[in-house]
Amino acid sequence: MIITIDKKMQDSIKKNLLDTLYKKGFEVLMQEGIEYDVLLLTEGDTGMCCADIRMVEGVIDVFENSSSYHLASREFHNEDSIVRVNGCSIGGKEPLCLIAGPCAVESKESIETIGMAVKEAGVDVIRGGAFKPRTSPYAFQGLGFEGVSYLVECGKKLKKPVICELTNIAHIEAYKDVDIIQIGARNMQNYELLKAVGKLDKPVLLKRGMASTVEEWILAAEYILKEGNPNVIFCERGIRTFEKSTRNTLDVSSIAVLKEKTHLPVVVDPSHAAGNWKYVKALALAGVAAGADGVMVEVHTQPENALSDGAQSLTVNHYEALVKELEALSVVLGRKCR
Amino acid sequence: MIITIDKKMQDSIKKNLLDTLYKKGFEVLMQEGIEYDVLLLTEGDTGMCCADIRMVEGVIDVFENSSSYHLASREFHNEDSIVRVNGCSIGGKEPLCLIAGPCAVESKESIETIGMAVKEAGVDVIRGGAFKPRTSPYAFQGLGFEGVSYLVECGKKLKKPVICELTNIAHIEAYKDVDIIQIGARNMQNYELLKAVGKLDKPVLLKRGMASTVEEWILAAEYILKEGNPNVIFCERGIRTFEKSTRNTLDVSSIAVLKEKTHLPVVVDPSHAAGNWKYVKALALAGVAAGADGVMVEVHTQPENALSDGAQSLTVNHYEALVKELEALSVVLGRKCR
Amino acid sequence: MIITIDKKMQDSIKKNLLDTLYKKGFEVLMQEGIEYDVLLLTEGDTGMCCADIRMVEGVIDVFENSSSYHLASREFHNEDSIVRVNGCSIGGKEPLCLIAGPCAVESKESIETIGMAVKEAGVDVIRGGAFKPRTSPYAFQGLGFEGVSYLVECGKKLKKPVICELTNIAHIEAYKDVDIIQIGARNMQNYELLKAVGKLDKPVLLKRGMASTVEEWILAAEYILKEGNPNVIFCERGIRTFEKSTRNTLDVSSIAVLKEKTHLPVVVDPSHAAGNWKYVKALALAGVAAGADGVMVEVHTQPENALSDGAQSLTVNHYEALVKELEALSVVLGRKCR
Amino acid sequence: MIITIDKKMQDSIKKNLLDTLYKKGFEVLMQEGIEYDVLLLTEGDTGMCCADIRMVEGVIDVFENSSSYHLASREFHNEDSIVRVNGCSIGGKEPLCLIAGPCAVESKESIETIGMAVKEAGVDVIRGGAFKPRTSPYAFQGLGFEGVSYLVECGKKLKKPVICELTNIAHIEAYKDVDIIQIGARNMQNYELLKAVGKLDKPVLLKRGMASTVEEWILAAEYILKEGNPNVIFCERGIRTFEKSTRNTLDVSSIAVLKEKTHLPVVVDPSHAAGNWKYVKALALAGVAAGADGVMVEVHTQPENALSDGAQSLTVNHYEALVKELEALSVVLGRKCR
Repeated sequence: MIITIDKKMQDSIKKNLLDTLYKKGFEVLMQEGIEYDVLLLTEGDTGMCCADIRMVEGVIDVFENSSSYHLASREFHNEDSIVRVNGCSIGGKEPLCLIAGPCAVESKESIETIGMAVKEAGVDVIRGGAFKPRTSPYAFQGLGFEGVSYLVECGKKLKKPVICELTNIAHIEAYKDVDIIQIGARNMQNYELLKAVGKLDKPVLLKRGMASTVEEWILAAEYILKEGNPNVIFCERGIRTFEKSTRNTLDVSSIAVLKEKTHLPVVVDPSHAAGNWKYVKALALAGVAAGADGVMVEVHTQPENALSDGAQSLTVNHYEALVKELEALSVVLGRKCR
Repeated sequence: MIITIDKKMQDSIKKNLLDTLYKKGFEVLMQEGIEYDVLLLTEGDTGMCCADIRMVEGVIDVFENSSSYHLASREFHNEDSIVRVNGCSIGGKEPLCLIAGPCAVESKESIETIGMAVKEAGVDVIRGGAFKPRTSPYAFQGLGFEGVSYLVECGKKLKKPVICELTNIAHIEAYKDVDIIQIGARNMQNYELLKAVGKLDKPVLLKRGMASTVEEWILAAEYILKEGNPNVIFCERGIRTFEKSTRNTLDVSSIAVLKEKTHLPVVVDPSHAAGNWKYVKALALAGVAAGADGVMVEVHTQPENALSDGAQSLTVNHYEALVKELEALSVVLGRKCR
Repeated sequence: MIITIDKKMQDSIKKNLLDTLYKKGFEVLMQEGIEYDVLLLTEGDTGMCCADIRMVEGVIDVFENSSSYHLASREFHNEDSIVRVNGCSIGGKEPLCLIAGPCAVESKESIETIGMAVKEAGVDVIRGGAFKPRTSPYAFQGLGFEGVSYLVECGKKLKKPVICELTNIAHIEAYKDVDIIQIGARNMQNYELLKAVGKLDKPVLLKRGMASTVEEWILAAEYILKEGNPNVIFCERGIRTFEKSTRNTLDVSSIAVLKEKTHLPVVVDPSHAAGNWKYVKALALAGVAAGADGVMVEVHTQPENALSDGAQSLTVNHYEALVKELEALSVVLGRKCR
Repeated sequence: MIITIDKKMQDSIKKNLLDTLYKKGFEVLMQEGIEYDVLLLTEGDTGMCCADIRMVEGVIDVFENSSSYHLASREFHNEDSIVRVNGCSIGGKEPLCLIAGPCAVESKESIETIGMAVKEAGVDVIRGGAFKPRTSPYAFQGLGFEGVSYLVECGKKLKKPVICELTNIAHIEAYKDVDIIQIGARNMQNYELLKAVGKLDKPVLLKRGMASTVEEWILAAEYILKEGNPNVIFCERGIRTFEKSTRNTLDVSSIAVLKEKTHLPVVVDPSHAAGNWKYVKALALAGVAAGADGVMVEVHTQPENALSDGAQSLTVNHYEALVKELEALSVVLGRKCR
């Protein structure tokens, strides 16, 4: 149940209402607004009907909500949420957010060279993996803590926020200067990790699990929101299907569905979906046309020598050309100019 | 093997070459060009090597082709094919082709009312089903031959080409005035039907089977091309996956893959993919951004009363708005203005 | 709605009841039993309630049915249906039905050699394809009508019923001596073909479409049943999923679901599911353990030289060993001894 | 590369060989056998050829291995591995291992009541979840540490080993008396967790991720094996497909594939695959017929009141009947009597 109350509701009435709700067994989450506050009720005595609550003085509106999630729902928060980090905004009508960089940080020099190149191409956030979840234990696993610090230094030098994937609760302290925490597809339902990042005060980019439904994905976001962190960004990166001409099947419909059902920003990752740089441009454009607020792309100065995912990395030249097309497209679609 | 020969090759040499090829057991298909002819060889004696053929006077080039299909491949025909029908062109840099109409022809009046409305919105081809392949034998099966004739009349009256799905070889005669034959998803691997439409001299729009890979789809087109009909148009309409928030998962990547591997035009059908009119706009835009040459949409003047697929049909107003957005988008993407 | 009436219901009352039902717009299908007749009503006036009908003298029972299909449902026909053909029975507690033979009939000699071998191994029905639906138009397409006649001759000589896949309505006449008609996975939703075989008086083995849900499959059977042919046998042959270590994913759950929801026999085809002879035994046993009434296996005397599907064909020796294991298993599971 | 060396190889030669391998950059894992030792080499200088090594005195055999995994492969360890824990053995020709209990430990009394009941039915290992990974943050999350201790106490009282799912590295200490650690489907690619349990000296049951290929699953096991823990048990619990009549699609083929490619034991979990108790029996039998070494089933004394997964839990009576059928089946299949 979701109850909207007037900011000016008398304190005694408010206390009474809350006491009653607690007694009925509800768990109450409050979100403060400018003119109204919103109470979100979960579980509790179903015998308590909306009509009773609606009669309390100062209660503006009450309704049963229809989805299995609450905090992520447009029913709870109708306006688009905008996530802001270090001078970069994502969501609503904000300009398209561009995230780029190598799959993995390979060395101090390499991340800075690539960072510089994508900065010149117009990027907003620099990406780079440090602890790489690889299917095989014999594959390159990333530089670990060293990789995190190279990426952070690079971001400071270039004055750009950075994003890095977190795979272990025990590493959180080492990620304190990372601007945006990425939760990868394989960890989308690692609920212990979700709860941990829900306690941080930095944005979390939540990739879709490779066989997760949109509803399960929103519920994973709900785990983070419930712990108090409102800054969740979804990232569509393709799902697993029978089709093998691309690495995954980019599900652009999910972007449209998320935009209808939730208020949170959505980013598209065409690189992991395609698995082949040749298709990255078409998928990036398609994702933005479907409503994505940002685009995360793997870029490398020497894709042929990349330690991981070289086949799907764009060269700097291709990336520059893509940025121009994305900007033209996003303006036609009514998004603010960069 | 694909052999390019000079138009000016001496007849005796050509006869000799062909004789040799036949003796070696090859089946030879010839496509005549302006300066060159192209010979496509299938099966036959693998002992015959390219080098021998390359030495024949008048042979320009010979190569082993790398894919399992031939006629549909860019290796065989590098330039974009453009399909033309009754004043409408589709493919290459031609303006975006707009196809719209009801799921099923419901009556003479109804198809004309809807036809008129979509014509005013700027449509190029009018659609309408007559023999509807329905999952349940108890569901509305379409008006049959009557439906075909209402659609044809409507097209003549409005001076627009029409497209109608064919489900039975025995019906071909009744479709003689239908401009474009549609092969539905359920019949994509009905090879007997494919061979039959391969003998017609009208364009065939081939929908993707709901669990068909891109390669199987191209091979289905190859069945049509092999019978002599070069006018095949692919239509991506979503594939079956685990995701249930849309009826099917629109695979925009397939559009990019088809554009790379084949020379044939591609249309996107966002209505069947979405299964919900709310997502049709986002998916139509995404399909065009990914490279589609046309968009086929279900439109109804009274979606709530449609005899089939009402939930996914756009109203005329929504369709008019969509057409404007599609045009703006296609210009940004470098397509000719309509 | 399903109405059970007493055989001894007075003719005048029966006529009255039927008249009323027709007037209300119902389509009525009658199935005659020994003591009772069953009326199946589809569509019609929903205003007509069960209670009114229940009061008619001679009406034993009336109920609304809960699934989207009727004739295939256990609600309509509670006992297991047994399909009988030329001395072979399949379904209920009948002994496990063994179907085997080559993927395609390759020559008169070849089908007879293989037929003889599988007969000695204990087979009940001999299989062999004549018109092969192949993904590529350049692959071996089968011997066509010649193949059908070789198979029929072989069956006569060995006094065993034969099964052959039908892909074209126009071929039906040529299949008149084929004992069981097979509808392949690619044609499961070729409704025109289903309606045509629904008018025959011979059993139809209906393979599951490679991306068809169990419900769609039952509805495809309903198309056949509705035309008057009650002898439908389901055949699970694997579905398409992301997994690639087998050609398809054998869905043994579907066998359990079909057995609960319908009264029709179910056969398992481990060969097409596995795509690799090494896994055929395990899948055959699993299918029978899950409840299958029969097993269809591809067997070849020289799998390495088979013109199609050699990789998944068992040798005769392997097949003989499999038959012994299947028999032991089916006895443990409570099935009649062969 | 895999090198088999004679136990009696001279120490100096052995040291020389190892030194050379280290210098060439190989990582060497040694597994000691009775007559032979096996060296597994990963990465390293590809310039070093098998022929050179084969000539070293005492080297029995050398071969390049063909799969992406090593320790899990039959190429590395040809005989079936048998995992033993507290008097219970699983794998090879050992009797079928029966694991049963509630989805979640709900109270001290409840786990003991259910534990007692399944012990009487003949169970080998008692299951019960404590930290439940639930799709929704609002669903029952398990009793946590309390749940672990109730389960452990129950096992001690009934003298049966217990199995419990681990979801967080930080909980490992609290699981010290749990006999078998379960890694759930959602954590199959939580590599940090896999590495952590690879350092324990207790068996790990590794469930298949819901969209993981068999190869990815074996590679996940390889993460555990590589850390030194050889006691990995696979558990097939169904994969995600388009089919919705069961919760997941039990992939019995995976059991056959695992048995061919690896030496590790495999358990089948029909409860999570079915999602409906009605289909549990058929799937349990199918799994064993396909080669599974054990069966894990959810059983509850009051399924209708279970706090989670009640719909798929068997009653005690149904479970007793199932055990009898499983035993009869496993004897027919050549497994040792219990």
